[in-house]
Amino acid sequence: MADVAEKERRILVAVDEGEESMHALSWCLKNVVVSQNSKDTLILLYAKPPRAVYTPLDGTGYLFSSDILSAMEKYSGEVAGCVMEKAKKMCRDLLPQQDVKVETIVEGGDPRDVICQMVEHLRADVLVMGSHGYGVIKRAFLGSVSNHCAQNVKCPVLIVKKPKTNDGK
Amino acid sequence: MADVAEKERRILVAVDEGEESMHALSWCLKNVVVSQNSKDTLILLYAKPPRAVYTPLDGTGYLFSSDILSAMEKYSGEVAGCVMEKAKKMCRDLLPQQDVKVETIVEGGDPRDVICQMVEHLRADVLVMGSHGYGVIKRAFLGSVSNHCAQNVKCPVLIVKKPKTNDGK
Repeated sequence: MADVAEKERRILVAVDEGEESMHALSWCLKNVVVSQNSKDTLILLYAKPPRAVYTPLDGTGYLFSSDILSAMEKYSGEVAGCVMEKAKKMCRDLLPQQDVKVETIVEGGDPRDVICQMVEHLRADVLVMGSHGYGVIKRAFLGSVSNHCAQNVKCPVLIVKKPKTNDGK
Repeated sequence: MADVAEKERRILVAVDEGEESMHALSWCLKNVVVSQNSKDTLILLYAKPPRAVYTPLDGTGYLFSSDILSAMEKYSGEVAGCVMEKAKKMCRDLLPQQDVKVETIVEGGDPRDVICQMVEHLRADVLVMGSHGYGVIKRAFLGSVSNHCAQNVKCPVLIVKKPKTNDGK
């Protein structure tokens, strides 16, 4: 890491409710982020499902009441808050010197679009993410978010897989 | 990089004759490798086309003489040597302290297989590569090597794209 002390780096980590993204964050904190006398900024990004996902009329013809929609929206916000708290705690635990600036962003939308857009918007120097990213259910529909991002963003992409454990993850 | 000083890391960088892999190596040296008091080992891996690529009988029915085959083999070895020299020079230039162990491996075979096998065999902690990898001609036939490796190796994968320049790369 020859000249890392002289330059400011914006490290964007895509986090979600899955263990894999927390493992990616942990690996990044241990292997990429410089903790002492650092000019690194760590940006934690959570992509919240867009409102459009909660269509009032579902496939079976049921109409969701505004109460249910509002409850779903509240739940979604709570998940985002919970994920961010967990991620920030990991940063505090693994970077005790607290020289690193940590920022959080919650953005609504398809995670593939949100991540690619934020990499560009924030001019990130590196994108860090789990290999699947963004939840078991969503990735069944969307395919691999990390694959999409690796092909579409211009900055270096670090894809971290969670080692296999007994629970089959 | 909280506890990086205590652990030994094996950083495998896949290099080839393209500028993109040299850019990936450079990024890795500046952003991942710890240069001072380091327990990092940097392993430069070059996958040489297998002998089978030089089939004696080509598609047009021409038979390659043993002289041509031997010349091709020699050329392939020279390219490998040239790539490794360039990569090692970059390591010397960017890691002047020389605390980092640098090893080189040249292995014959399809780069996709060679890289995935070496990651496992060497128990690499991270794989670093350009986004295409392994030459303009070969990738036209093989598809994206980095994509294949990102999906198949178990360790974290860092994919580094070369910023666009005027020559359209």
